[in-house]
Amino acid sequence: MPRPDVPDLVERARRGEARAVARLISLVENGVEAGAGDAGTADLRAVAAALAPHTGRAHVVGLTGPPGVGKSTSTSVLVGALRAQGRRVGVLAVDPSSPFSGGALLGDRVRMGEHATDEGVFIRSMATRGHLGGLAWATPQALRVLDAAGCDVVLVETVGVGQSEVEVVALADTTVVLLAPGMGDGVQAAKAGILEIADVFVVNKADRDGAAQTVRDLRHMMSLDGGEGGRGWKRPVVPTVAARGEGADDLVAALDAHRDWMDAGGERRRRRIARAGSEIQAITLERVRARIGDLSDASGLPGLAERVVDGELDPYGAADELAGTVSGR
Amino acid sequence: MPRPDVPDLVERARRGEARAVARLISLVENGVEAGAGDAGTADLRAVAAALAPHTGRAHVVGLTGPPGVGKSTSTSVLVGALRAQGRRVGVLAVDPSSPFSGGALLGDRVRMGEHATDEGVFIRSMATRGHLGGLAWATPQALRVLDAAGCDVVLVETVGVGQSEVEVVALADTTVVLLAPGMGDGVQAAKAGILEIADVFVVNKADRDGAAQTVRDLRHMMSLDGGEGGRGWKRPVVPTVAARGEGADDLVAALDAHRDWMDAGGERRRRRIARAGSEIQAITLERVRARIGDLSDASGLPGLAERVVDGELDPYGAADELAGTVSGR
Repeated sequence: MPRPDVPDLVERARRGEARAVARLISLVENGVEAGAGDAGTADLRAVAAALAPHTGRAHVVGLTGPPGVGKSTSTSVLVGALRAQGRRVGVLAVDPSSPFSGGALLGDRVRMGEHATDEGVFIRSMATRGHLGGLAWATPQALRVLDAAGCDVVLVETVGVGQSEVEVVALADTTVVLLAPGMGDGVQAAKAGILEIADVFVVNKADRDGAAQTVRDLRHMMSLDGGEGGRGWKRPVVPTVAARGEGADDLVAALDAHRDWMDAGGERRRRRIARAGSEIQAITLERVRARIGDLSDASGLPGLAERVVDGELDPYGAADELAGTVSGR
Repeated sequence: MPRPDVPDLVERARRGEARAVARLISLVENGVEAGAGDAGTADLRAVAAALAPHTGRAHVVGLTGPPGVGKSTSTSVLVGALRAQGRRVGVLAVDPSSPFSGGALLGDRVRMGEHATDEGVFIRSMATRGHLGGLAWATPQALRVLDAAGCDVVLVETVGVGQSEVEVVALADTTVVLLAPGMGDGVQAAKAGILEIADVFVVNKADRDGAAQTVRDLRHMMSLDGGEGGRGWKRPVVPTVAARGEGADDLVAALDAHRDWMDAGGERRRRRIARAGSEIQAITLERVRARIGDLSDASGLPGLAERVVDGELDPYGAADELAGTVSGR
């Protein structure tokens, strides 16, 4: 396969050409999968470098919540509400639940059908494809592709369970936590820690029994800390009935208010700097990991491992010896 | 809290004292959670060093499979069958599914009630406790505690979904994959990749419709590669009805046969050396990570992150600069 013309792809993506956007995200995914020295790695780096000057505009919104809460429907409805205002929208549906998924599980996402032919919407499903941590690597770059392609808002929706909530927080300017009535009381949810990560709460299925109680529980819980959870931002609780599209405009308003609040006080920039810092650290660490792997034979790792198996050495002592080799001390 | 007397704890654990075993595993867990320089880290290292001479005897068996297949019941029944032969058994029930679990979800595990008062059985539930990757770090050391405590067999059962299957393979001498009829056809399972990791197959709920077909599908699939999946070991398919205890002795026999095969050809030792090597690498890498964290301010990471946010630099270019600082180049 010929090497891609990355600057041309970025230029076409910036003009909103869906195929160029898709190709760039594929290059990012393949690059993350590729080993050091592979052409894919060079492509990833070329894409990252070419995107850099064109990023930083999109409002990145993460959506998370327990399974069954209506995340998918809410995402779709939110896309509709944003499109009705003429905004360009990107959607990344991220599934970190299985290393065995072997590709994007969601396929063409039938439920997104109404938006599939809309030129103002880019939808992409991402799965781990067997590479541990691969999703965490590829997603920030995929976000940058959608950002450079002129998306005003990029929605990152996590599918499945696991560390997805943590990953969303690590990616988003604004984190939306969706709850629904009858999914356990407020105390349970608070215990689970998921409430702490929210910038905006949505109580979906608000037409069901117990919805008012869930909203009250949330507001009561927040009254204990002034509703801001130490943020300086009073976190709104937005009731929705996503299946009927109700509350979508309120949610858009809440997202905009949070964005404006972040921009006014410099919070968005602070979050982004912290995020970029973590990403740089992770990339650096991955390189060191590769270097340890490369050096493993030379550094006597098999011998160390054998001594651990024979009970002559514990793994921490062995790591002392290996670290000495790798760092060149 | 006074610092623990680690050699005394290890001595008591070796005599089979359950409280000493539990305390050592807690020290391991806390040590993994602790930051560098914390007393917990010193305790972890002391435990690892004190255990080293007393490990390597236990047969480590991992149990995995899709949710609903009967893993918990199968584990319990397997414990009973091993105890009936007078063998000492350890059980680690590992739940990597949620970073928000805030402790061992399984508590006292009512279903293990029949074994709870048996002095020949140690049962421990482990959860991630919010530390990404914490489980992967703590589990090998917890295994060593149970090994040193004289367990003949240690069962590692994964609860929940996610990367648990991969982690089990990384830990176990023998990996048991449980399936049940009606959970999708053989092609699906093969596609999911879970079949590749098995040393022994169990078709649980073998009294249900479709069980014979599932067994046939598995055997047919394996006939294509001689049943050995490139291992040199013909992987058995054991039908069980765990809820009634049926097939447990057959499963024990299959596990013993795999252990004997591994020992005869040196395969167990090879697997353990590979495993110890991965563990040493991971510990080394974690130290480098901590060092990058320590150096972050000095290394100008915030400035690099800011340049990434401003689009002046991409994260890969920033990592080049950071790596130069950290490695002292």
